[in-house]
Amino acid sequence: MADELFVLKIGGQVLEDEEALREVVRQFAARGGYKILVHGGGKRASQLGEALGLPARMYQGRRITDQATLEIVTMVYAGLYNKKLVAALQAHNCNALGMSGADANAIQAHKRLGGEIDFGFAGDIDVVDDQGITRLLHAGFTPVFCALTHDRQGQLLNTNADTIASRVASAMAKTFSVHLQFCFEKDGVLRDPGDDASVIPLIGQSDYARYRKEGTISGGMLPKLDNAFQALKGGVDRVAISSIHQINGKGGTKLTL
Amino acid sequence: MADELFVLKIGGQVLEDEEALREVVRQFAARGGYKILVHGGGKRASQLGEALGLPARMYQGRRITDQATLEIVTMVYAGLYNKKLVAALQAHNCNALGMSGADANAIQAHKRLGGEIDFGFAGDIDVVDDQGITRLLHAGFTPVFCALTHDRQGQLLNTNADTIASRVASAMAKTFSVHLQFCFEKDGVLRDPGDDASVIPLIGQSDYARYRKEGTISGGMLPKLDNAFQALKGGVDRVAISSIHQINGKGGTKLTL
Repeated sequence: MADELFVLKIGGQVLEDEEALREVVRQFAARGGYKILVHGGGKRASQLGEALGLPARMYQGRRITDQATLEIVTMVYAGLYNKKLVAALQAHNCNALGMSGADANAIQAHKRLGGEIDFGFAGDIDVVDDQGITRLLHAGFTPVFCALTHDRQGQLLNTNADTIASRVASAMAKTFSVHLQFCFEKDGVLRDPGDDASVIPLIGQSDYARYRKEGTISGGMLPKLDNAFQALKGGVDRVAISSIHQINGKGGTKLTL
Repeated sequence: MADELFVLKIGGQVLEDEEALREVVRQFAARGGYKILVHGGGKRASQLGEALGLPARMYQGRRITDQATLEIVTMVYAGLYNKKLVAALQAHNCNALGMSGADANAIQAHKRLGGEIDFGFAGDIDVVDDQGITRLLHAGFTPVFCALTHDRQGQLLNTNADTIASRVASAMAKTFSVHLQFCFEKDGVLRDPGDDASVIPLIGQSDYARYRKEGTISGGMLPKLDNAFQALKGGVDRVAISSIHQINGKGGTKLTL
């Protein structure tokens, strides 16, 4: 039977909230077995850009990454947030190892081409080196990935953290029995965005198609759910969407094919 | 016979100079066998601080690291510079893995206490986890260290890159035959700071004491040479100080006990 691997994705807002951060770090560190953490981190990057006179440019919720913006997100994602998480996990005896997709050549991508808008240095993932990541896990380390990839020609690229979590989880599913959990500010996927108690406990692919058609699920939840279903199709055993309070417990929204 | 390990320390100015950076990356990547890169990076951190209205505060050439400054150096050292180097090395088929001392709990330190001035979040190294670093080397990775350590209680600390190189090299000397090279803007230790051709080819401990007394060697060269001799005393086989043009060749200043 394959070893279990837990892949947890946390949003940037957790990193801004000291209490939430402590809670995630405590729970994640306490969990035994193989594990990988993936984190986003958009807000602070936008704030740093503002302070430097380079306000964020977004298109349909996605950041347009010019050269100056790439430097800012590299500083915030791979520097500030990644090392903050690693140092906090180490304090809880979790042997964390912070990484971008360039480190250990873990996640190779290409610059997004075409489309109606030029997103600049935005990367779409080509390949995840599951063997290299497995060697790190077997050597006793817990990878902590920030939302950066590279093209293996020297160019760093900005890549969505949900997508990184989904693709890493899928690649690792060749070797491990993988449980992927996306944590965000709500307790799960809501039937009514205005009612925090309206968590949908289970969503199958056909339910998703219906919810989508009806407009029950929309906006930023769509790419998150797309990533979740991609992971299931990629061989991940269990996928859930929840708040940080349900990392190790019941609750949240479970996805099935 | 012990495996050979090459530890190269490069200064921050190499990271500001695209041509110098390409040269270092090309030479370092081309070198076979086990290797570790250590980099500084002060200038850009000072510039970012200036841009954010937080000019650097220095005391005898050393940075005073308050909370805001720690965030800035974490962004620049562990983010911008570290990932720039890692991506560039990956493009040259060197399987680089960027790290701070918090990652993999590689370098544990304590906040510097006492002294005539409070340097803030400045770390003095307690222990280097040579076994963890050895596992990374054996797993096929080339660690790239930035100038940050941690106290294992969640606090990142700013630590001199020359000192990190010296202490990492010494710790690794338990297992490897280590060659440590410090690269900076000159061709070696100069007899006359105004004459770039006055490189002293070999300096023993007694020579160093004499040069120091005479004032031939002074200022910023003193901590560099102290770190170099510490490495030799710590069991490192060969230590040299040179420019980046002498990484793999002859020249520069060799140190002996």
